[in-house]
This record gives sequence, structure tokens and C-alpha cells, in this order.
Amino acid sequence: MARSHPHWWGWGRQDHRPPLEENPDFWPTIQKWLALPDEAVANETPPVPLDEITLRPTRLDDPVLVSLRRLLGEEAVRVDKPARVGHAYGQSYGDLVRLRAGYVPNPPDAVAYPADQRDVAALLSWAAERDIALIPYGGGTSTAGRLEPPTDGRPVVTLDLSHLNQVLSVDVRSRTARVQAGIDGPSLETHLNDQGLTLGHFPQSFEFSTLGGWVATRSVGQQALTYGTIDTLVQAVRVVTPVGILTAGDSPVEDAGPNLLQLLIGSEGAYGVITEAVLRLRPLPAVRDYRGVLFESWEEGLEAVRVIVQESDLRPALIALFDHSAVAAYTLLNHEQRGLRRMADALGRYIKPRRADFSPGDRALLLLGFEGEGGWTAQQWRQAGKICDECHSISLLRNLSQHWARMRYALPYLRDILISHSVLVGTLGTAATWASLPRIYATMVGAMKGAVIASGGGPGYVMAHLSHACAQGAAIQATFLGRQVGDGDPLALQAQWETVRQAVAEAVVSAGGRMLSYNGLRTVHTLPDDRTNGLRERVLRSIKESLDPLDILWSGDRRG
Amino acid sequence: MARSHPHWWGWGRQDHRPPLEENPDFWPTIQKWLALPDEAVANETPPVPLDEITLRPTRLDDPVLVSLRRLLGEEAVRVDKPARVGHAYGQSYGDLVRLRAGYVPNPPDAVAYPADQRDVAALLSWAAERDIALIPYGGGTSTAGRLEPPTDGRPVVTLDLSHLNQVLSVDVRSRTARVQAGIDGPSLETHLNDQGLTLGHFPQSFEFSTLGGWVATRSVGQQALTYGTIDTLVQAVRVVTPVGILTAGDSPVEDAGPNLLQLLIGSEGAYGVITEAVLRLRPLPAVRDYRGVLFESWEEGLEAVRVIVQESDLRPALIALFDHSAVAAYTLLNHEQRGLRRMADALGRYIKPRRADFSPGDRALLLLGFEGEGGWTAQQWRQAGKICDECHSISLLRNLSQHWARMRYALPYLRDILISHSVLVGTLGTAATWASLPRIYATMVGAMKGAVIASGGGPGYVMAHLSHACAQGAAIQATFLGRQVGDGDPLALQAQWETVRQAVAEAVVSAGGRMLSYNGLRTVHTLPDDRTNGLRERVLRSIKESLDPLDILWSGDRRG
Repeated sequence: MARSHPHWWGWGRQDHRPPLEENPDFWPTIQKWLALPDEAVANETPPVPLDEITLRPTRLDDPVLVSLRRLLGEEAVRVDKPARVGHAYGQSYGDLVRLRAGYVPNPPDAVAYPADQRDVAALLSWAAERDIALIPYGGGTSTAGRLEPPTDGRPVVTLDLSHLNQVLSVDVRSRTARVQAGIDGPSLETHLNDQGLTLGHFPQSFEFSTLGGWVATRSVGQQALTYGTIDTLVQAVRVVTPVGILTAGDSPVEDAGPNLLQLLIGSEGAYGVITEAVLRLRPLPAVRDYRGVLFESWEEGLEAVRVIVQESDLRPALIALFDHSAVAAYTLLNHEQRGLRRMADALGRYIKPRRADFSPGDRALLLLGFEGEGGWTAQQWRQAGKICDECHSISLLRNLSQHWARMRYALPYLRDILISHSVLVGTLGTAATWASLPRIYATMVGAMKGAVIASGGGPGYVMAHLSHACAQGAAIQATFLGRQVGDGDPLALQAQWETVRQAVAEAVVSAGGRMLSYNGLRTVHTLPDDRTNGLRERVLRSIKESLDPLDILWSGDRRG
Repeated sequence: MARSHPHWWGWGRQDHRPPLEENPDFWPTIQKWLALPDEAVANETPPVPLDEITLRPTRLDDPVLVSLRRLLGEEAVRVDKPARVGHAYGQSYGDLVRLRAGYVPNPPDAVAYPADQRDVAALLSWAAERDIALIPYGGGTSTAGRLEPPTDGRPVVTLDLSHLNQVLSVDVRSRTARVQAGIDGPSLETHLNDQGLTLGHFPQSFEFSTLGGWVATRSVGQQALTYGTIDTLVQAVRVVTPVGILTAGDSPVEDAGPNLLQLLIGSEGAYGVITEAVLRLRPLPAVRDYRGVLFESWEEGLEAVRVIVQESDLRPALIALFDHSAVAAYTLLNHEQRGLRRMADALGRYIKPRRADFSPGDRALLLLGFEGEGGWTAQQWRQAGKICDECHSISLLRNLSQHWARMRYALPYLRDILISHSVLVGTLGTAATWASLPRIYATMVGAMKGAVIASGGGPGYVMAHLSHACAQGAAIQATFLGRQVGDGDPLALQAQWETVRQAVAEAVVSAGGRMLSYNGLRTVHTLPDDRTNGLRERVLRSIKESLDPLDILWSGDRRG
């Protein structure tokens, strides 16, 4: 079960690159939106070659390395440059700009590959005896800064869990599987699909992220509405902590008492190394029926989504509503793809003559999908279609599921290309109740636009989509594009990104909204959320001290 | 919004008593099942009159009481006998037998009725300054021993939250409500129903238990399959801790990081006083369609339930499968009620002639219900009916929803009567995956029967039902009846109950099962669950120390 590792300086496999060359509109449009200088479009800045990066020698002396190799085996310990550079960062914008510039001042001193849970426990003891910090590492796709070594002077070993990648058992009757945490998304799904089952957890990082990473970051998949977020998909976890093995939640039915499982989910490796989980599975759907529906306005699209998710009979697998800027961007991006070109054509053909009052600038696109038996999905679509009709929509495209399958993981690849053409790019999330969502959306998009401009990023381009919804409210993900500042200085680039993030977070929170703190454990505390009174931090600190009293497991607090 | 308090020695209102007199079969059958002596049937032992109970004087001296009254108001502090006896215990078997015997050696020294959150915070400071233990008290229906004062010598004040009983706001659009924790079930539902909404949380204690109690004990309602368990129905809670106010989980969409909300849910008042919650609501269903289906065997009934809950298109509001002993008991109990008498008749009429191979001793009854729009519930029933047919069932009764509404809260009333006739009675729960459920069920029922006999309780009667199910497994509640030992000595009665509980728990756990620890926070730790390695306890202790460093909030560890 070998895994295709991301290449060291960016996302995914190097051969997998969006074919933008075939799309003559792409760069001219981006240039116009962002007021990019000609040279940014003409010149792609490649990453600094690995050869040219000079790395600080490992701070682990020979006896220490010998002891580590004796523990795990010769092959399981690497101190070479590709391994150390490849594990120095995650995949946040700040990580990528620093990595591409060859700015790696603080790499891990070694990368260890434990073979099993016993190795992990041994590694924790080994590190505790020597005051060495450990960083658990799954797929390396974190955008929360957790993979970056601390700068407190301690040597650091990154603990790569890619060898703990087995499906240990599947109970088809009870629809559960015991799985090791280092398995990546495609390997897990392939194994489960062979038995007619699926976990149904598809975050954007699915191709490279791991089960352990999903659990550690409380991941939300794109189809969470049908399949559930990772915290509901996990029935139990095993965590190797510095003080022993902690297993939480081994009953199919919710137990009494405080829920430690939900404390370990989202713990980002701060309390221990997640080595194993028991997962709740579902049967593979017979039919995937995804369609596109165009609304005259964002507000009407929001209303349709609210009614659909509040309708107790309807259970969409995917519900995503794109605002007008996002629709324009996706249409541009997919010019070469038949499906969305047809949609772009339809926009002109259908709307303009038919509806005089339709302002293309306000339109919103709903991507809605149902999965299950054919009769059931058809019935669901009939009901959902009626709701959409009542909200002034135009049904545009059927058979979008294959298109969606191609598009769903594409954006991180595109980000690498944009960065190499001097484009600032980032995504932030918020969540709000239905009553306050329209206002919070407007605040977030407005603040983002303003902040990009204020950061020196030019006019900027901001697009948003509703990415997750429930009966009470929804989450919005907004992406900003702008011009990079600082002449390629990676720290200036990182600071620009952070300026935008900070400004948006403050604006949203002061409007009564709440930022989704998917950016990591410590991020949660830096949000200006006085409602928690510092008590949340106090509780988390006490848990940390009880499970990792020597602070061996370090979880980063940088972002960007 | 005045609340009908339970009377001091047992369940509910004294005028609400099952009309067993009208059922000539009841006592003869119970006598036969339990081998009860004639005098137990003939003589009802009433509780000791309140007048005859001599209570230890309050340990709060006048200046302390004056300071408390100055804080909360004259009316809000009670030291009279009815208040102190009425708050001395919960509603476990051990509580009831001691209360009925007038055995109240350790009542609270006062009962305080805070009017709002500020009063609660003030009370916590007041108690901390004087080393007085506080016990949060909702509806008084706990069976976990948490309401019983500690015996560590400290004075104890019970903090009755019945005055925090307001629905603060309802957001119909976002389907949420902000509600104070002291509200009882009927008051809450009445308020929500007026706006076309429901919480849908109906535990057996519904009539008297409170929102705060549900949250504190991680309550599972009878209709959790459609509406969700309390941990999914609560979007946020506010807890007044001795070190400040902790609010957790105020976003409709799951946030990153460890989930403190799920730590406070189930915390049983050990970390603070739950004063408020934001609830997720649903619309009131148009139709409630409940029916009874009889299976030839328990195993076939289990199989039908498994297929139904694993079917992604089906969403039952209620699914409860009763084993043959439970069917016999419910039939007996409901002899006076038309619905179940019809069923009893049907058992004879339908089954015997039609199916030669049908053994009445093995039969199982499924109570299955759907709630929603009429067309939808009919379609759900068609699909569920097909599954039941394939598992050799006989559809017995329609229109059971009213019958269920009458029955669902009846058993605690009946328990009082049984206890007064020298009957030992208790219920324990287990949960298991579908693959292991038949074995765990058999182990539990067998162990229970054996333990009742070994405790001196005679032949005993054990009945069980599947009370909650999900795609991965289900929960079984088993009830045991037997003869009381110890000639009315309340401590001997309590010990007999505890003997049975302990034996059953050990048998189930050693068979690889897991007891549902609904009996309380500290109970969890006493289970022989070496998988947690003491780490669970360690983490919970660290949280307790961070939020209640002086151990003001006491949560009991007695049971029985």
C-alpha cells in the first residue's frame, strides 16, 4: 500500500498540473481582476532547487542517532536533505512561499518512520528521556502550522506515520472498520469499496491527507451532510500519549459522562499520537446524481439551501452554493471542460432573454447532489427541484457528478501555479445561523476585499461559497486573490497573508460572527473570543499537562 | 411556569397511580413469576410519614444562613424538613428504599433557589469562602447518586435550579432556542410547540427532569433516532464554574479543536452549574404513525431492526424491540388497556393456528414509529414493512402512538408500587455492535437471572428491550425483578441491588461487552475497563482541578 507522496515544494504529484495552457482566457482574466503586471503573468518563478538549499546540520549527535536507529531500525530514521526539507512545513500559503524560496531555517533534525504502535510508544519514551520534541506527521497537508518545528532550541524529530497504513479489520455486519491512522484517503476508500462500503469522508486534501490527520484536525468532508463530519464517523480512537495509551469511545451507542473521544478528535497531536481508529461505514451508493442550479441572487440561493437542509425528508450528499464571483472564477477555470462551458453558454442563452430582471452580477450557483438508490435519488431531486423553483432558480446542468469528481481536489494544484505567478491566495471560513448568515457573509467578503487592498495587494478578487449546512446555519468559505508584495521575500509574503487574515477575523467577530478555526488548535485561542473568558485555554492546558507533562509533543502556532 | 414537583418519597404526583386494581391478573402473575409470599402481595408497606423522620439540625449557623439569605433573598433559602428531605436523594432504587424507610442520615443543610445566573455565581463564591459543598439539583430524577450529600463533614447546600425555567428566545428561522437549564420537559415542549417546533427529547423521566439534568447526564431520549441524543441537540451551553463562566460551542457548524461542549455535556455538575443552553429544534411532525410488529424470535427481530437502521432511506422516530419476557410483562401490565389486550388476543388468534413452528416463548415485539408528513410516513412504513416481512414478522397493531404516549412514562410510577410490595426492581443497560449483540444480550439476561437468585431474590424475572440503535449496533436495557431481602432494612435492600448490578457488569464486561454507564460520572471509573489504563480518570481529574480547584461542586458516587 505505497503512497504517492507530495513533491517537496507544493501540492500533489508534479505530473498532475491543470492544463491552463489550453485556456486562452485564463491569464488575461486573472490579470484584469488582480491588476497583475505583465511580467507576473509572463514569468513563472520556479521553486529554488533542492541542491541550492543549505540546511542546518542535524542537532542529533551520533550516539543519539544510533540509539534511535537501534530502536526503530536503520531504514526508519532519515536525516537526509529531501526528508528534512520535505517535513519542514505543511501546505499553508506561508509554508509554500517559504519553501519555494528555499527558506528553511528550522527543519526537523530527523524524520522517524515507526512501524507500529509499539514503535510510537518507544519513540515517545526515547524523546522524553532526551528532551527532544516530537511532531506527528500524517499526509503533510496541514495548513495550521503544526508541522513546523518549535524554535525553543530543542532538537526535533518528525514522526512520519506513513507506515501505519493498514486496514486492520472490517466488520461488514456492524459496518465498522479498525484502521491505522497513517492510511491516506484513496488507499482507505479503495480497501473499503472492495467490500461495498465507504467512509464517505472527502476533504479537499483527500488524495494525500491521512485518517490520523482528519481526526487530529476535526476534519469536515465535502459530503458531510450525508456521511457526517469526521467526529461522527469515528467510533473510537487509540492515542499513544507520553503517559500511556488512551482509548476513547468504544461503544456504538453514546455513553454517559464527559466525552473524551471528542477531546481527542481535534487535538492536533498535542496530547498524543493517534495510531488507530474505529470508523463507522456506509454502503457504497448505487447512484450519484449531482446537478447545477442557478439562482437569480445569492440570497435566493441561500433561502433554497436553508429550506432544503431544514426539510426532514431530504438528505443531500453535497450542497455547495457559489456566489457570483465564485461562479465567474469556476467558469473561467473550467473553460476547457465541456460541462462548465455548456453552463457558461447557458448563462447567456437562457437568462438574458428570459428574465429581464436578472442581473448576472448577482447570480449564485448551487451544486446539489444526492447519493443512494436510483428511485430514492430521483424522488429527492423532485422534492429539491420544487424548492429551488420556488426560489427563482434555473436548472442548468445534470450529470455533474463526474465533473465534480474531477474538480473537487483541483484547487490546491492551481494554488501552486498562482503563487508562482506572484499571486497572493488564501481561504478563510466562517459559520453563522441562518438568521445572521447573509450579514456575516457580506461582512466577510467586504472585509476581505478591503484587507487585500490595504495590504498592498491591488484591487483583489474575493469569491465565496457556502460549503456546509445544517438546519441551524451554514459555513462559508471565502477565497481571496491579490498581488504579492515584498519582491519575493518569503517573510513579507507570509506577513501579507497574515495581515489579511487578522483583519478579516476581527471584522467578522466584531460583527457578531465567528471564524472557523480550522487553522489549528492554538489559533482558537488567539481569536478575540472573550466569551470563553480564558477558561477554554485553562481547561485545554490542564489536559495537556496531564497527558504530556514534559511537553514532548509540540503543536505549532504559526499560520499564513 | 410553575412545576409539579415529585412528592418526597417517590415518583411523580401522588394522584397519578397506575390502576392495577382493575387488573385481576396483575398480582397473581407477579406472585407466580417472583414466588412472592402472600403477605407481600396483601400488604403494601407505606413510606414512613414525614413527621416521624428526625432530621439532623442544619450545620449552617445563623450568621452563615443570614449571609446566604442576604445574597439570594429570604424566600430563596429553605432549611425546613420537607425541603431538606425532598432534596436528600434522587430516584434510584437505593434512594427510594432509604427514603421510604425514613433513613435520611445525611440531608443537605439547606436548599437554595437562585433566581438567575448571577445568583448562581454568587452562591459559588459564597460556598468557596466557607468551604461549603454545593449540589446542583434539577428535577431530582437522577439515578446516579449525584444528589446525595457527601459525608466528608462539610456542610452542604443543594442548589435547586427550578427558578431558572425560562425560554429566553426562539429563532424560528435558524431553529434554535436559548433556554434556561431549570426548565422541565413539559414546560419546554409546550413553549416550543406553540411555535410549531419541538426539541424531540423524551427520556422516561421527561415529566419531571430538566434541560440542565439532560445535559449534565448526557441523556438519550426515546426518539433519539430521529431527533438525536441530547449531545447532538445542544448547540451551546453556559456553565458557571467556580473560576468563571465557561461557554462552549456557539457555532451551528462543528468547529476545530478539542470539543469542550462534549466535555461539559455529561459532566454531571462536577465542573460547574449548567445555567443555559442553545438547543437545535425541529418542526412538529404532522403525523405520528406507530405500529406493533411481532417476530417469531428475538433474533429475527434484531435482524429486522439492524436492516431498518442500516437502510439509509429509513428514519424511524422510535424503534424498540421487546423480548418475550418483556412482551409478557407489558401485556400483563396493559390488560386494562384496549390496545394491548387486542394484541394479547391476537397472539393467540393469529399465531397458533397459522404457524405451527411458532414458539410463543421466543417471540419479540417491535414497536416502530415514524413521524413527519403523512405521505412520507406511509412510504417509510411500506419500506419498513417489507423488511419486517422478510424477517418472519406479523404486523399486529396500528395506531399505537397514543398508547405509546400513555405508556412511555408509566414505569417509574409502577416501580414505587412494586417496591411497596417487597419487590426488588432495577434496570441496567449495555451496548454492543450488531455482530456481538445477540451474545451480549444473552450474557446480560443470563447473568441478571443468576445474580437475582444468588442475591436471595428468588427465581426472579428478567426482561429486556433494545432501546436505541444505530447502523453500528444497539443498546439493550434489561430490567430485573425479584424478592427483597433483609426484612425492610434499607441498607440491606440497597446492598442486594448493588450485588446484582456488580455481578451483571462483571459478566457483561468479561464477555467483551460494555455496560452503559448512565449511572453516573464516577461509576464510569469503577467499571473494570482496563483499556483506559487510568488515563481517562487522570484527564477528568485534571479538568476538575482546573475548573473547581476547591472541590466545591460535589458529585456523588453512590448507586443502588
